[in-house]
Amino acid sequence: MYKGHGDPNAMLYLENSQVPTALKETEVLVKMKMAPINPSDINMIEGTYHMLPQLPAVCGNEGVGEVLEVGSKVSSLVPGDWVIPAGTGFGTWRTVAVSDQEMLRKVPNDVPAISAATIMVNPCTAYRMLKDFVCLHEGDCVIQNGANSAVGQAVIQLAREWGFKTINVVRNRPDIDQLTGYLKSLGATHVVTEEFSRSHQMKDLIISMSSPPKLAFNTVGGDSATNILKHLDSKGAMVTYGGMSKKPVMVSTGALIFKRVRLIGYWNAKWVQENEENPELVRMFDDLFDLVRECKLLPPASETFSLKDFKLAVKSSLEGYKGSKKIFVMDDTL
Amino acid sequence: MYKGHGDPNAMLYLENSQVPTALKETEVLVKMKMAPINPSDINMIEGTYHMLPQLPAVCGNEGVGEVLEVGSKVSSLVPGDWVIPAGTGFGTWRTVAVSDQEMLRKVPNDVPAISAATIMVNPCTAYRMLKDFVCLHEGDCVIQNGANSAVGQAVIQLAREWGFKTINVVRNRPDIDQLTGYLKSLGATHVVTEEFSRSHQMKDLIISMSSPPKLAFNTVGGDSATNILKHLDSKGAMVTYGGMSKKPVMVSTGALIFKRVRLIGYWNAKWVQENEENPELVRMFDDLFDLVRECKLLPPASETFSLKDFKLAVKSSLEGYKGSKKIFVMDDTL
Repeated sequence: MYKGHGDPNAMLYLENSQVPTALKETEVLVKMKMAPINPSDINMIEGTYHMLPQLPAVCGNEGVGEVLEVGSKVSSLVPGDWVIPAGTGFGTWRTVAVSDQEMLRKVPNDVPAISAATIMVNPCTAYRMLKDFVCLHEGDCVIQNGANSAVGQAVIQLAREWGFKTINVVRNRPDIDQLTGYLKSLGATHVVTEEFSRSHQMKDLIISMSSPPKLAFNTVGGDSATNILKHLDSKGAMVTYGGMSKKPVMVSTGALIFKRVRLIGYWNAKWVQENEENPELVRMFDDLFDLVRECKLLPPASETFSLKDFKLAVKSSLEGYKGSKKIFVMDDTL
Repeated sequence: MYKGHGDPNAMLYLENSQVPTALKETEVLVKMKMAPINPSDINMIEGTYHMLPQLPAVCGNEGVGEVLEVGSKVSSLVPGDWVIPAGTGFGTWRTVAVSDQEMLRKVPNDVPAISAATIMVNPCTAYRMLKDFVCLHEGDCVIQNGANSAVGQAVIQLAREWGFKTINVVRNRPDIDQLTGYLKSLGATHVVTEEFSRSHQMKDLIISMSSPPKLAFNTVGGDSATNILKHLDSKGAMVTYGGMSKKPVMVSTGALIFKRVRLIGYWNAKWVQENEENPELVRMFDDLFDLVRECKLLPPASETFSLKDFKLAVKSSLEGYKGSKKIFVMDDTL
C-alpha cells in the first residue's frame, strides 16, 4: 500500500487486514493469483499518473484472481471463476480482495495465469493500436520503437497473426543477438538497433519492403520518435503510448503538411473506461484469449517475485524493464 | 517565368510570347485579371515546394481571368465568364493564357475580381480546416497563430459566420493596436500577442471562455505551435498548414497520451487535386462566393503591383507578409 506519493522505494509498505466475515449481496471474495508491475503502477505511486486513487491505496492495476465466495445477489460469477479488474485502480498487489461484482471482469480459467494477469494493459494496447488508427491490409508494415517492451512483444505477435510485417527498433546492448532471436521467434520481421535505424542501410531495408510503414508506435519520444516518423509512409500515423526518454515528440511542419503524417496518442486505461459497454471490448478479450490458448500470444518474458519481496521487486522494476516484466505471484507465505 | 530553381529575386524573367491565332477544339483563351503572390509560389521558384512544374514555367498558382474566346467543342464556358485554375501549377502571372477547358474552373463574375483571384488557396484552406478535423458546435472556440495571415483572416471571418469564437495570436509590432482593431473588425473574438499567449493572463482568458479551444491552426511551428497546443482542450486537434519559423512542432508524450490531442497537417493543393470530382468542392466554392457577395468574406488586405513591376513585387513579398498580400493586376501596359 501507499499513503502518499513519492519514490516507490520509500512509499510502499505491507499491511495486514482482516477479511470481512460476511460478503454483502453483490460482493465477491477473490484470492489474487498474480499481478505485474507496470510503468503506470510506478507512476501512480509517484503521483505523476493522470488517474490517481484515493489514499491510502493498494497498489497495482492489473492481475488475475480466483473467486472464492460470492454474495447472495451475484449471478455472473461462481467460485472457481477467474477475474481481472474491470477498470483502473483496483489494487491488485494483495492476496485477497473483497470487491463489488461490477469491478470485476470474468476471464477464462483454462489459460496460463500469467497470461490472464497481463492481458489487460499491454496486449489490449497493442490490439487497439493495430486496429483503431490505420486500416492495415495483409502485407502492410508497422514500425515501433521500444520493441522489446511488453506492448512491443504483443504488437509483434498480433501483427504476425494478422499478416502485418513489423520493423522493431531496440536499443543496442551486449546481448542484442539473443534479443533479436527472441523477438524474431515471436514473429518480428526485422529487428534493428536505434543506431541502425538512423543509417543508410535502414533506408535500403525500407526500400526492400513492398511499401514503407503505414503505422508507427512510439513509447520513447525524443530522437527515437523523430526517427521512426521519418520512415513512415505518406498519410501514415504515429501512435504514442509511452514516453520513456521523457523527451517530447518533434515533427517537421513539412511532414505534417506534405507527407500528411498524423500524430496521435493512445491511453489504454481511458479506452477501457470509455468502452465498458462496447461489444468490441468483449470481442477483443475473446480474440486475445483465443490467441493465448493457441500459444500465438505468449506472456512477456518475466521475472517473478513473492509479494513479501515487494521492495526488491519494485526496486528491480525501477531499474528498468531489461527484457523481463516483474510479476508478483501470491503464495501463502504472507 | 523561371527556367531554374533558386532565389526568386534572381530567377524570374519577363517573356513575351505570341498567342496562337486559332484555338484547338477544347481550348479557351483567357485574359488574366489579377493574381496574388502566395508563399507556395515563392517556394515553387525556390524549388522547395512539394509539387514542381516542368521548367521553364510561368509562375503563379492562383488568380482570376476572363474568357475571351472558346474552341468549337467547349460547352461549359462562354466569352465573358470568369475562371480560376482548377488545380496547382497553372502559371497565373501572365496577361493571357491558352488553356484546355479541363484546367479551368468557372467562378461567378459578379464578385470583386480580387476576391475571385484569392479564393482558391487561403479561404479554401480556412474552410476545410474548420470543417474537416473537429466537429465544432456554435460557441466552440478555435485558436490560431499567424492570425493576420490571409488564411488567418479567412478563419476569423468564417468562424464568425458559423458561430465559433476565435483566439488569434500575432507577433507584437509597433502598430499592434491597429492590427487588433482590424482583426476584430473581421470578427476576431480575442487578439493576443505571442508574449501575452505565454502569460498567466492567457490562462485567465481561456478560463473566462465557456470551454478551451477544440481546434488549433498552426502556420508557424516552433515555440508558437507548442504554445497554442498547451491551450487546446482534451481531445483537441492542431492542424498545421505552414511553417513560417522553419522550426519543427514539439509535443509532449503526455499531451498525446493523456490529453489525447492530435497533430495533423493540411495541404490545400493536394485536397483540391484529390477532390476534383467531389460535390463538396462545388459546395465549398458556392458557400465562399455567397459570403463574398454578402461582404462577410473580405479579400485579404493587399498591395497591388503591375505585372511589369514583378521584381519589386516579389522582393516585397520576400520581405514578409507585413499585413498585406501582394497582388498583380494585369493592365495593358506590357
